[in-house]
Amino acid sequence: MNQRVFNFGAGPAMLPLSVLNEAQAELLNWQGHGMSIMEIGHRTNLFMDLMQRLEALFIETLDIPQNYRVLFLGGAARTQFAMVPLNLIREHEQAGYLVSGIWSEMAYLEALKLKNAYCIASSEGDSFKSVPTYKAEQILQNTSFVYYTPNETINGVAFRDTPDVLDIPLVADMTSCLLSEPLSVADFGLIFAGAQKNIAPAGLTVVIIREDLLDRTKASNLPTMLNYQTHSAAHSLYATPPTFNCYMALKMLEWIKSEGGVSELYKENCKKAAALYDFIDKSEFYSTTIAVSSRSIMNVCFSLSRPELESSFLESAEKAGLVGLKGHRLVGGLRASLYNAMPMSGVTALIEFMQRFQEEKHEFN
Amino acid sequence: MNQRVFNFGAGPAMLPLSVLNEAQAELLNWQGHGMSIMEIGHRTNLFMDLMQRLEALFIETLDIPQNYRVLFLGGAARTQFAMVPLNLIREHEQAGYLVSGIWSEMAYLEALKLKNAYCIASSEGDSFKSVPTYKAEQILQNTSFVYYTPNETINGVAFRDTPDVLDIPLVADMTSCLLSEPLSVADFGLIFAGAQKNIAPAGLTVVIIREDLLDRTKASNLPTMLNYQTHSAAHSLYATPPTFNCYMALKMLEWIKSEGGVSELYKENCKKAAALYDFIDKSEFYSTTIAVSSRSIMNVCFSLSRPELESSFLESAEKAGLVGLKGHRLVGGLRASLYNAMPMSGVTALIEFMQRFQEEKHEFN
Repeated sequence: MNQRVFNFGAGPAMLPLSVLNEAQAELLNWQGHGMSIMEIGHRTNLFMDLMQRLEALFIETLDIPQNYRVLFLGGAARTQFAMVPLNLIREHEQAGYLVSGIWSEMAYLEALKLKNAYCIASSEGDSFKSVPTYKAEQILQNTSFVYYTPNETINGVAFRDTPDVLDIPLVADMTSCLLSEPLSVADFGLIFAGAQKNIAPAGLTVVIIREDLLDRTKASNLPTMLNYQTHSAAHSLYATPPTFNCYMALKMLEWIKSEGGVSELYKENCKKAAALYDFIDKSEFYSTTIAVSSRSIMNVCFSLSRPELESSFLESAEKAGLVGLKGHRLVGGLRASLYNAMPMSGVTALIEFMQRFQEEKHEFN
Repeated sequence: MNQRVFNFGAGPAMLPLSVLNEAQAELLNWQGHGMSIMEIGHRTNLFMDLMQRLEALFIETLDIPQNYRVLFLGGAARTQFAMVPLNLIREHEQAGYLVSGIWSEMAYLEALKLKNAYCIASSEGDSFKSVPTYKAEQILQNTSFVYYTPNETINGVAFRDTPDVLDIPLVADMTSCLLSEPLSVADFGLIFAGAQKNIAPAGLTVVIIREDLLDRTKASNLPTMLNYQTHSAAHSLYATPPTFNCYMALKMLEWIKSEGGVSELYKENCKKAAALYDFIDKSEFYSTTIAVSSRSIMNVCFSLSRPELESSFLESAEKAGLVGLKGHRLVGGLRASLYNAMPMSGVTALIEFMQRFQEEKHEFN
């Protein structure tokens, strides 16, 4: 196979071709400096300038208010499952979790293990086919923060609206949706996101934290690398950052800007998801059990009316240049992830393939 | 500047040109799969196969015994300053540290903050111009492990021999020397290394841990991501690993193999360092204060007899395509880092430049 495929995997995910082309062109000699970006020291002026541009463009792209800090941390977002409770829960407090899928459940379990936490509401009883509902009274008085996962990649469910949490800081794991839709950062105390869906290659985690929350860890005895203050004070350069990922993140933000910004990408993302859900809804061969009001626009989970054809579906799709359609190992079925870099032409190709596959299977019945 | 320069920075450091060329050629389409390696899911067979090859080649390259596990973790090595004591110090125990420079001192301070630790010996009194000496009696009975940093990048000092620590597990931060010289892994309980000197681009940390030490964290309440067991049990795939860095690490190991392995690179590394130290020793214009028996072959720290010429030296060097020669901000002076990917031709070019600079400055006196 010599041409590029459409990758519907949930992440690490597709990157825009123009971003890859640029990275390739300058991989041996970045901006005429005679070195690859991978070879440049993180404390050189060259790299520190890149980090400043990255931070500035992140702030511009999401219109982040001045009382927030943007941190670029090495490693996977899952470390945040511990950092959030360790940094933000004060004595005699507990954290409240909204559990809408496997990721928020894992975050909740980690908080329970390390500090005090409770579940405000969960949709586990509905097998995570919708997001949970709750009343403001269910949020206890000594709650340090309310945590939720706006988009759950594994189950393909998403909150349509930002939860109402009174004046309590809201914490959101936006790994699979940050930069895919407009956002009012002021509604949040802390946002984090692993990079490998919409931001950069895997190995970078972005944290957006409201300044006043940094005070909560002032006197704490946390491991230095797990303390948000460490990274905020050092402008994400306390330890060696994942330099190549930061460079790619800057390119991704430049690409987002060239596409018209997050609001334009959101329109396109809605169109992509609507086209696929519409096709599935009209078909008797494909179906989805996710509640209409909780459907993710990033991860479309669906299944075949004849599940025994799943492996044949995946194999034929791969031959047609449509890869990564297998559902997460914990839930099975099929899943098409439609992050920013997936073009409409990829979705159209998928729908056409699904139509063909359905017709073929009918034919041979 | 359109041609490649020689980068003497302490890390992120130079990568072999052949490795960069290969990565560039397949950046948009890895092995004909129609995707960049950056876009490939970490749970696909394609990537899991890469991780298996990476692990196998690491084991082969360093001849790692069967009772060790090799872990590939996202993020910076500095997280190990906390993970090592948190995982390995049991109740009523303490860790012993050999402090030979700024990195081992920071590791010691982190252990003191989180658990119980003591300093076996330090060369701080000598301004870290040598490695500390000690007698076996100085190691206390309830010592969990002895920790040291074989090569200190900032000060340019290195242990010539592996410290004798009786039967106590020896822990080594090999960030700046792993893969640069032959190694008897069986002498160690745990070895870790950030990737950005000799292994891969920044954002990956390799941990080699003796199996029996994993038992020490069985019942612990550590953050899941800070527990070595988590990563060992999941073969480094508990969370999304830094996939591109792992791919580059595999290419680096293949390059090391093609160069004749670690023992051949070590011979070359010794030659490179000897050439530069010899030149400095014979010169009256350049000097180094590091004790001969503690000189690092990876990081050659030196200074000018006329320190006021330092910025002129750095500027002229950069014009000659020799970059990254400024010493670490905490110690000043000059430093030439000579990791695996720095060719002898780079060292020769540096020495020729230093000779020319010296002559010019004499001329105008």
